[in-house]
Order: sequence, then C-alpha cells, then structure tokens
Amino acid sequence: MRTLTADTRQRIVDAAAQLFAVQRFHEVRMEDLAAAAEVGKGTIYRYFHDKEDLYRGLIATAAEQILQDVDRRLADVEQPQAKLEAILQAAFDFFETHPYLSDLLQRVEALSPSDETFAWTPVRKEFARRVATILADKSLAVADPASAALMLLGAMRQVHRFGKRPLTPKMVEQVVSTFLYGAAKRRPCGK
Amino acid sequence: MRTLTADTRQRIVDAAAQLFAVQRFHEVRMEDLAAAAEVGKGTIYRYFHDKEDLYRGLIATAAEQILQDVDRRLADVEQPQAKLEAILQAAFDFFETHPYLSDLLQRVEALSPSDETFAWTPVRKEFARRVATILADKSLAVADPASAALMLLGAMRQVHRFGKRPLTPKMVEQVVSTFLYGAAKRRPCGK
Repeated sequence: MRTLTADTRQRIVDAAAQLFAVQRFHEVRMEDLAAAAEVGKGTIYRYFHDKEDLYRGLIATAAEQILQDVDRRLADVEQPQAKLEAILQAAFDFFETHPYLSDLLQRVEALSPSDETFAWTPVRKEFARRVATILADKSLAVADPASAALMLLGAMRQVHRFGKRPLTPKMVEQVVSTFLYGAAKRRPCGK
Repeated sequence: MRTLTADTRQRIVDAAAQLFAVQRFHEVRMEDLAAAAEVGKGTIYRYFHDKEDLYRGLIATAAEQILQDVDRRLADVEQPQAKLEAILQAAFDFFETHPYLSDLLQRVEALSPSDETFAWTPVRKEFARRVATILADKSLAVADPASAALMLLGAMRQVHRFGKRPLTPKMVEQVVSTFLYGAAKRRPCGK
C-alpha cells in the first residue's frame, strides 16, 4: 500500500468542500468526489472510511483553522470587550471566506444534533468555553458566563445567518455592545 | 376519486412527525409512512405530492399552531418586557411539547437555507417581525429593532438548544432581561 500524504488528503478535502457546497449530502457520489480531486475512488477510501468520514474530516480541518486564527487574534488584545470582538470577528471572517462551510455545518449539525463524537461539537464547545472565559473577567461582572456565552454566540449566529446583507463592518461591534450593555437604551442608571 | 378529509391528512402528518423524529429524511420510506398512518401509499400521494411536500405540510401545521398560541398569549399582557417573555415562552413551550420538531426544523432549514418558499421561512420571519414590533415600543428605545429581534431569537435558540438541562423555569425571563439590560452588570451610568 502506498504512503498516505497530507497533500493528497488536502486535495480530497478541498474537492469535497466544493461538492458539498452545491449538492445535498446524499446527492454527492464518491465517483464525483474522486473525479473532482483527480484521484481514484480507491484512493479516497484509503484516506476516509466513507462519505460521512470525509465530511467530518472536512469539518475537522476547518475547525483547526478557525481555532488557530482565534488564538492569533486574541494574542493582540487585552480588554475583554475587544477580545469578544476579536473572537467573533474571527468566526465571522472565517465563514465569509468559506461561505460553503456555514451551510455545511448547518447540515452536519442537523444530521447528528446529539452525537458527542460529531466533529464540530467539541469545536462549538471550545468556542463557547473561550467566550465564557472572557465573559468571566471581573471587570464585566457577568452573572452566568456560560449561559451568556451561548446567548452571545446565538445572537451572532442569527444576525450573520438571517440579517440584512451586506452586513456592515461595524456589525460585530454592535452585537457585542448590545449584548454587554443591553438593547434597551433606557435602563435605569445603576441597575 | 374519494374526498380528501382533514382527519386523514392529520393522521398522515402525525405519523410522519413520529418517523422523521427518529430517522433521517432520506431513510424514511413512503411505505413506512403509510403503514404508520394506517393508510395505503396511494392515499398519501392524494394528500401530498411527495415526501418533501409531506415534510413541509408537517412544518406548516406546526407553524400555524405556534403562531395561534403566540396570539393567544400576547392578548393577555401589556408591558413590552412581559410581551417578549410571553412570545419566547410560547416558542419554548412548543418545542418542549413537540421535541422532535426542533430537530426536524434544523434538518429542513439545513436542507434549503436560502429557499424562500420553504415552509418555515415565512414563520421565522413573522416571528422575528412580531418580536421587532414589540422591541420598537418607545419605552424600550431599542436602536435597531429588526437586528435586535434576530439577536434575541438567536440567543434564545442557542440557550434552548445547547444550554444545561434541565432548563430552569426562569430561563426565558433571564434571557429577556440580559438581552434588554445587558450581560455586563457594570455598565457605566448614562451610557
């Protein structure tokens, strides 16, 4: 058996990303994946157990990239609010640069909502954990950082997914600010 | 051709809801749907064009129920904050009472994220529109009610979908309060 190489694996993953972006999961055939990646079908099976495994490999690769980008950006900022903006902007930029992945994740998440081994679940949790850690900063005094992190990520998701296009460059700042200080402007002072 | 009846349609929809709850869309066979509904396969095709049409009919029925419940609850309250709690509680209760529908909606939404004719899209928009109308109440002074409505619904979705179980009865109130007045307790006075 020939050696597996990172280059070939990446070529298969890239081809899969293109196909899954325009076809439903069950419509994508291994033959088409092989043709798009310019490898034999047998080669794909040496790297991936089946179509679902390939799908998950694609997600795992994306997950690694986004978390590395988050780390890089967080290294540059100090204030909690700026950190929240940086981590959300990383997610936002990632999905803008890889538009097909947003749809892909919806699909995979929908396929196995409660499967703890699902490739994206640990990433989603790690992302929420990092946001919660920032929210636990004493200067913010957030009552329940774990729930608040879910709220912030959910708010961001919905605006990104269903908000008016084009999204303004200030959108991430607005979401973070609204989330931290409230949508209602007339909060009683000191409350 | 025999007359179509609301009873038979509802029996088919109920059977479909049970099957789609435990099987993936492409795994559900019309034969099994017919057996579960105790009708012939031909009967199903007199009510629904195909499996996707049946799926959408199921979603449309759910949509009608949830919007009627929202109307009923909103009739009882006056204050904007209480209205927001009532509308989110209606959604929350609906998905708790019909747990399979939450997963179903994820799946259908993932299948056709940009299809404007998709049965749930107008419901999601109508729901967001109603929340935005409440947020536009002058007493709250929300800057951008449409975006704020998306944020609130996204926050609620994420907490409902990924929050710690069991969800506390106060959860809806907490989400609304955090959203309106901010997650950070130490907002500068007058900001």
